[in-house]
Amino acid sequence: MTDPDIAAILDEIDSDQSANEDRGKVADYIPELATVNPAHFAMSVVLANGQQFSTGDASLPFSIQSVSKVFTLALALGRLGDRLWDRVGREPSGLAFNSILQLEHEQGIPRNPFVNAGAIVVTDAILAGHAPREMLGELLLFIRTAAGDDAIHINENVARSETETGHRNFALAHFMRAHGNLLNPPELTLGAYFHQCAVEMTTEQLALAGRFLMNAPDMPRLVSRERVRRINALMMTCGHYDGSGDFAFRVGLPGKSGVGGGILVIAPGRASIAVWSPGLNAQGNSKLGTEAVERLARRTGWSVFG
Amino acid sequence: MTDPDIAAILDEIDSDQSANEDRGKVADYIPELATVNPAHFAMSVVLANGQQFSTGDASLPFSIQSVSKVFTLALALGRLGDRLWDRVGREPSGLAFNSILQLEHEQGIPRNPFVNAGAIVVTDAILAGHAPREMLGELLLFIRTAAGDDAIHINENVARSETETGHRNFALAHFMRAHGNLLNPPELTLGAYFHQCAVEMTTEQLALAGRFLMNAPDMPRLVSRERVRRINALMMTCGHYDGSGDFAFRVGLPGKSGVGGGILVIAPGRASIAVWSPGLNAQGNSKLGTEAVERLARRTGWSVFG
Amino acid sequence: MTDPDIAAILDEIDSDQSANEDRGKVADYIPELATVNPAHFAMSVVLANGQQFSTGDASLPFSIQSVSKVFTLALALGRLGDRLWDRVGREPSGLAFNSILQLEHEQGIPRNPFVNAGAIVVTDAILAGHAPREMLGELLLFIRTAAGDDAIHINENVARSETETGHRNFALAHFMRAHGNLLNPPELTLGAYFHQCAVEMTTEQLALAGRFLMNAPDMPRLVSRERVRRINALMMTCGHYDGSGDFAFRVGLPGKSGVGGGILVIAPGRASIAVWSPGLNAQGNSKLGTEAVERLARRTGWSVFG
Amino acid sequence: MTDPDIAAILDEIDSDQSANEDRGKVADYIPELATVNPAHFAMSVVLANGQQFSTGDASLPFSIQSVSKVFTLALALGRLGDRLWDRVGREPSGLAFNSILQLEHEQGIPRNPFVNAGAIVVTDAILAGHAPREMLGELLLFIRTAAGDDAIHINENVARSETETGHRNFALAHFMRAHGNLLNPPELTLGAYFHQCAVEMTTEQLALAGRFLMNAPDMPRLVSRERVRRINALMMTCGHYDGSGDFAFRVGLPGKSGVGGGILVIAPGRASIAVWSPGLNAQGNSKLGTEAVERLARRTGWSVFG
Repeated sequence: MTDPDIAAILDEIDSDQSANEDRGKVADYIPELATVNPAHFAMSVVLANGQQFSTGDASLPFSIQSVSKVFTLALALGRLGDRLWDRVGREPSGLAFNSILQLEHEQGIPRNPFVNAGAIVVTDAILAGHAPREMLGELLLFIRTAAGDDAIHINENVARSETETGHRNFALAHFMRAHGNLLNPPELTLGAYFHQCAVEMTTEQLALAGRFLMNAPDMPRLVSRERVRRINALMMTCGHYDGSGDFAFRVGLPGKSGVGGGILVIAPGRASIAVWSPGLNAQGNSKLGTEAVERLARRTGWSVFG
Repeated sequence: MTDPDIAAILDEIDSDQSANEDRGKVADYIPELATVNPAHFAMSVVLANGQQFSTGDASLPFSIQSVSKVFTLALALGRLGDRLWDRVGREPSGLAFNSILQLEHEQGIPRNPFVNAGAIVVTDAILAGHAPREMLGELLLFIRTAAGDDAIHINENVARSETETGHRNFALAHFMRAHGNLLNPPELTLGAYFHQCAVEMTTEQLALAGRFLMNAPDMPRLVSRERVRRINALMMTCGHYDGSGDFAFRVGLPGKSGVGGGILVIAPGRASIAVWSPGLNAQGNSKLGTEAVERLARRTGWSVFG
Repeated sequence: MTDPDIAAILDEIDSDQSANEDRGKVADYIPELATVNPAHFAMSVVLANGQQFSTGDASLPFSIQSVSKVFTLALALGRLGDRLWDRVGREPSGLAFNSILQLEHEQGIPRNPFVNAGAIVVTDAILAGHAPREMLGELLLFIRTAAGDDAIHINENVARSETETGHRNFALAHFMRAHGNLLNPPELTLGAYFHQCAVEMTTEQLALAGRFLMNAPDMPRLVSRERVRRINALMMTCGHYDGSGDFAFRVGLPGKSGVGGGILVIAPGRASIAVWSPGLNAQGNSKLGTEAVERLARRTGWSVFG
Repeated sequence: MTDPDIAAILDEIDSDQSANEDRGKVADYIPELATVNPAHFAMSVVLANGQQFSTGDASLPFSIQSVSKVFTLALALGRLGDRLWDRVGREPSGLAFNSILQLEHEQGIPRNPFVNAGAIVVTDAILAGHAPREMLGELLLFIRTAAGDDAIHINENVARSETETGHRNFALAHFMRAHGNLLNPPELTLGAYFHQCAVEMTTEQLALAGRFLMNAPDMPRLVSRERVRRINALMMTCGHYDGSGDFAFRVGLPGKSGVGGGILVIAPGRASIAVWSPGLNAQGNSKLGTEAVERLARRTGWSVFG
């Protein structure tokens, strides 16, 4: 596979996906996100040798939402190490991203760090002893360092919009607090959580920020090789909520999606891939984004499964 | 990593695991399996170049139980192709291997081909229009071809023992029949299912039988490259029931376990690994077997995650 | 309230209900029942003084189905006393009549004797040490004695039809067997269970058979006063599956429904009431039957709630 | 049954229950309640002729907690009539009093007005357009009128204690708000809810306050006869959470319990009964209180079931 091929493949995908009329449904439960134009499409790839390729609206920032959970997980593991796993599991949930059922069955311990409840616990764990502002500063520093771009920022309007309408996340947080699995007041943890979800990036920035998960020699080394593997493993089994099995089956690479329509996908040792298309499928993952990555994986032969 | 290392690693693992006193609990709900000595331990590795390594009781046959689901899935996909997915999903269940909860919530469609209900549907799909004897003959032919060993057989005593005590599987089968997702009479499908679970193999044979999942140039090609990837993906996300996330996290390789204490693990492009230790952990997977594979993966650096 | 009023009320109800076009849906999962004409309507009342009133098709036999559970419960309590409650609970399930969810959560102990699983356990408890033929003979004797009518019989075609299609009940039985809460082979217990459900009665016969639950001085005394109260209590809280709360709210009397469209209702100290209309509501209870009893209760002022 | 008998029965019950060492467990999740002495026992009866009987600590106020739900339900039905049932069901839940599972399965509509979620909706419905202070004033007026006692009040310490620790109720409220089934901000509705639960009464006052549910000629008529029946029906099927079936079975009368250890029980047409003993059974209902009412019912023959 030589470099020009990637450029050609991306062009081909962009051309087809831009014309695709079955674009899924833009998330409407966060008012600020509901207004995003479903016609957007962007895809960026960074290879292990540092070469970058992009297509579509790759310079347009979008709300990364739950893709941020990858970065907070890396931060939390750096701070707490394996103690984090006392408070959150490592298993797929078999349920929707915002389900509360499992919490009742399993005494307030979320199934994994990528469902909402789990990500709230991870944020709560990082917060401990810090003001939300500090924690968010540290998170932005991590992301900016990973991407090599100091312009990455948080969209306050989106954060505010989520705070006002995020009753389901408040329910999750209070429920875990009732079980003793939230150390800070729900308002405080959720304030930080809604802001972390409101980080905005372009696919170019996101693909760069994902380089540290490649475990490739010339890429930034922000966490240990062993920890990268574990984060990738969690992305594979839990990164797409109740569509994780299907993503692994179709794409064969670890990835993490967000309701803003972005997905970060890692081809270990080979590439960091970011895709964005706002319309979602039934499981809450970007519809065209998933199809685009599936196609890229098939054309390049990138798969962790042989 | 040169060949002699594998031999040394296996010896080291065998030595430690044989002395390990925390061996888990032998499955007791199938009377014939309850009598197996928990002191057994065996591990075999076949490399992509064909070299074989073994340690422990690697010539002693054990009941492969649910590891057989990998072979029936390959058979069923060969016969039905993607139509199989109309009757069974591709998502982790977040529940125990023999849970019936999900079937009620999702109208008799099992979550994936590796939970019991899903495997029963796969067997039912292969059966259609055949006598159980024919289907089992075909399955044995597949496994014997994969392993290159005609001595592999079914233990009738184990099959009979499961038939007499497999009330939970009967419940699953009748429940799916009530939802129209079982084409044959429950007794017929379960008769075939209990026999397929009663296939006996040594770790040497099982590691050989797994070669076709390596996607390595010199290995037997029984199904297409693309299909191998998909089977490996399902093993990664669903192969260890409600412990699949943890196995992916700790080991980083696709694997399928059985309550007989066996696990088949694939390092794509590199190795096929079989391990056996009868004692199980809380999720129903071989306790020492999982630890042994985790150690092998760490020592060799084999991981699909970079 | 003088006697002639009952006759007038019944006529009025019959007249309105016969003209009612919104008749619910005849159960279609038992082929023999699916052919019943939804136009039928019948209602019979026996007062504490022995007076009888009927309207509509009150001489036409119908399949009493789950109404039989009242009689088997009375039999089982007579034989086992409070030991029965070791194997079945006394709480409403909050789930459909044939749900298997609760059994998994509560280790094979059904919630109450009126959901299918619970009734199967009750039949299993009566069976112990008897052939199904004997148990069914005893049940028929009990019902015939209660009704004072030796013509009451079992419809073999309906029993056979249920045996062939009752996969969901087989699932329940095998599941309980797996938990050790079924003493006889599932086939045996279900053979008896399907026959008990296939008892046929007219509303005249059913109202007479219900007299022993009135706890009125001149009525047949088949079980103790205290036990009658307890059976009535279970009918109130659990007699209409997941519509029991609504029936108590609207009608205010204990009752037990069957998917054949029959309901037996008791006004303690005052009347035994049987109604039949084959069409069912969403909870699986007779739609017009429920409305008819609600109207009768309102017109007569019969309510246990003051 | 003549009047002196009641006095003798109460004495006998009090004597036995005061000596009973198996007193259940005082609720500890509300700090202010956790300090209550489990040795308390009190019971009061008001007959349809107005006669009053009491025993034990019948002049000692206790926190009525969920018993208050009966009064708010009566208030809400008076204001909204049957429109209330658009927002809350009438079925037993088959789950714990504070479970959130059912809300997720049934889109934020609580099963009945007596589980926590349902009671929060009822309070929310009364609140609409009022300040909590007004709503609470109206509730106190209703209870004081019912009891004929202006001294009944709210314990602010208990209300505050619940506000600080009621994370599970906050979870329920936010969850329903997310489903559009809460009209006021969660903080506002819960503020009113926690205060209503903090009403304090003696058993003497509570038995008097329950007179309007007797449907007896000389008793206060606060709501229509038909509505009283319906409230009693809901108390029978849902008044003791997941112990409602057992209470109906053992006692045979409608009742409503609270985690403060109080129970209000109605013998329609005959008596209003209040009992208090702080220790709870596994279902969260007063252990000795339930036993005491069971005994009273057996000795008096009061049962709605014949």
